[in-house]
Amino acid sequence: MLPFEVTVLGSSSATPTATRHPTAQVLNIHERFFLLDCGEATQIQLRRFKFKIQRIDHIFISHLHGDHYLGLPGLLGTMHLLGRDKELHIYSPPGLKEIIDTNHYHSKTFLNYDLNFHVLEGKSSARIFEDDKITVETIPMNHRIPCYGFLFKEKEPLRNIIGEKIAEYNIPVQQIQEIKKGEDFISPEGKRIPNSELTLPPHPARSYAYCSDTLYNESFIEQIKNVNLLYHEATFAEDKAERAIETHHCTAKQAGAIAQKANVKKLIIGHYSARYKDLDVLLNETKQVFENTVLAIEGETYKVE
Amino acid sequence: MLPFEVTVLGSSSATPTATRHPTAQVLNIHERFFLLDCGEATQIQLRRFKFKIQRIDHIFISHLHGDHYLGLPGLLGTMHLLGRDKELHIYSPPGLKEIIDTNHYHSKTFLNYDLNFHVLEGKSSARIFEDDKITVETIPMNHRIPCYGFLFKEKEPLRNIIGEKIAEYNIPVQQIQEIKKGEDFISPEGKRIPNSELTLPPHPARSYAYCSDTLYNESFIEQIKNVNLLYHEATFAEDKAERAIETHHCTAKQAGAIAQKANVKKLIIGHYSARYKDLDVLLNETKQVFENTVLAIEGETYKVE
Repeated sequence: MLPFEVTVLGSSSATPTATRHPTAQVLNIHERFFLLDCGEATQIQLRRFKFKIQRIDHIFISHLHGDHYLGLPGLLGTMHLLGRDKELHIYSPPGLKEIIDTNHYHSKTFLNYDLNFHVLEGKSSARIFEDDKITVETIPMNHRIPCYGFLFKEKEPLRNIIGEKIAEYNIPVQQIQEIKKGEDFISPEGKRIPNSELTLPPHPARSYAYCSDTLYNESFIEQIKNVNLLYHEATFAEDKAERAIETHHCTAKQAGAIAQKANVKKLIIGHYSARYKDLDVLLNETKQVFENTVLAIEGETYKVE
Repeated sequence: MLPFEVTVLGSSSATPTATRHPTAQVLNIHERFFLLDCGEATQIQLRRFKFKIQRIDHIFISHLHGDHYLGLPGLLGTMHLLGRDKELHIYSPPGLKEIIDTNHYHSKTFLNYDLNFHVLEGKSSARIFEDDKITVETIPMNHRIPCYGFLFKEKEPLRNIIGEKIAEYNIPVQQIQEIKKGEDFISPEGKRIPNSELTLPPHPARSYAYCSDTLYNESFIEQIKNVNLLYHEATFAEDKAERAIETHHCTAKQAGAIAQKANVKKLIIGHYSARYKDLDVLLNETKQVFENTVLAIEGETYKVE
C-alpha cells in the first residue's frame, strides 16, 4: 500500500524550548510531500529527519502567528539556493505574500521559481486542492486571528488486480488500468470476465485531519467524522483551562472530547505549552476521554495503515 | 577580571545543515549581553546553551540577508510572551522595522515593551553605542547589500586597589572609586599617599571585532588593528575563490590575511558553506596565513583573558 503518513517536525506552542520546536509537520501521501505549517527552524528539522526539501510542492499555513510560519522565509531561500525552478504553492490566510515580499525586498532576493499564493478566506470549509489521488479541504478554526485546519482525504483507491488472472486471461497491459477502476474484461473471443473475478476490493480511502490552534470548537466535528487520524492541538492541561480560553487554545481533555465526538480512529495531540516538561500529564488527561491517543514527538512518523 | 567573551550560536552560511545554524553570537561584556546577528532558530540556540533571553538589551544585525535576521521576529515574540517590559535596542541597516511591523500587523501582535530601532547608514564607521564600560563602532563591509561589522572596545579599565592598603590607611569606602580612577589618598592627618602605592595597573582594555559577510576587504584593517579577538567570515575554501567573489564572500585564506595584516591576537572563522562537512580544510587554509586561528563551533565560548 502506498504511504499515507505524517511526521512531526515541531511540537511546541508559541515559545519553543531547548528541545521542542514550533509547529510543522510533513505529510507523505503516495510519496507526495505536503508541509503543514512552517514554524521557525522547520528547514533544519527537515534536514535532521532527512526529508528532501525540493520534493515539497505544497505548503499549508494554518494562520499567521509566528510559531506557524516564521520558518517559511528561510525555507524559501534555501529552496532557491539549492537550485529549485519548479513552482511552489502556498495556502494561507491573507497577508503572507506581503510578509514574504517585504523580506525579499530588503534582502534583494529574487527567487528562481514561482510562488503561487492561495489565499484562504471565509468561515466555511472549502476544497483548496485536488489531484488524482487526494482532496484537501479547509477546516475553519476559532482562534484569535483567521485560522484553518486541513482535511486530507485519499480518493477511492483503485481495485487490486489479481496477478494470476492477468496471465490466465492474457490481459493486455493497456487494459489493466480500466479493470482496476472496475471494468469487466472482454476476451479476444468475446467472452466477458466479470471484474469481481479479476480483482480484490481496494483498501478503504484514508484520511487525516490537522486541527491547529483553536478554542474548543465542535463546529467541525461533522466534517472530520470517522477520519483515520486526527491531529488536534492540546496546549494546556486541565488546571490551565481558563488560560486556554483566554488564549483561544484547547486543553488536552478537550482535544480528547473532539476525537471522541468525531469518532476518529486515532488522535495525536501536540502544540504543548513550554511549561510542561513531562508531557504525560497531557497524554493522561486526553486518554481519560479518548483512549487511542499518542503524543506528537518530533521526528516520529504516524502511519495510517 | 570581569568577563569579555563571545559564544557562537550559529556558524553556517545561508543554507543551514542538520547540525549548523545560521549566524548568531552572544557577547558577554561584564555580564552585559549583546546579540550579534539573529539567524533562524537563535532563540532555540539561546535556550540550548542556557542564556537568559531577557538579559539581552541590544541586538546588532549586520545586514538583511535572511540568515542574519530571520530569528528576530520569533525572539521578539518570545521576549513578549515571557513578560518583558524593558526597552530593546536593535541596530541594523534600513528596512528591519518595516519587516517586523509587517509581521506584527498580520499576526495582530502588540509587544508589551518598546522596540528602539537604530538605523545604520553611510560608508564610514560610526560610534553607535557607548556606556560607562564600552563603545561600539560599525565596521563597513563590502557585501551585496548594505552590511556592517561591529567593533566592541572596553574602555580603559579602573586600576586595581590593593586590599591591604585599604586596611593600612583606613581608606573610607566612598573614596575607593576615585582611587581606582588614579587619585592619590589624603589621610585625615593630611598625609598624601601616592596612587602608585595604593593600586596596581589595570589589565589592558579588551576588544572584539565582528566582521560578518564581506568581499575581501582591506579597508577596515586600520580600524581593527591589534584587536584581541577577530571574528571573520570564511565561507569558502581556496578552490571556490571565484564563487567567493561572485557572492561577495571570503575564503578561509583571505580571512587569515586580514587577521595577519591587522595584527590581531586571535582569529575565529565561521559562516561555513554547507558543502564543507569537515571544517579542517578551512581551518588549515587559514592557519597557513595566520596561525592563531580557531573554528567557530556552536555552543563554544571564546574568552579574551
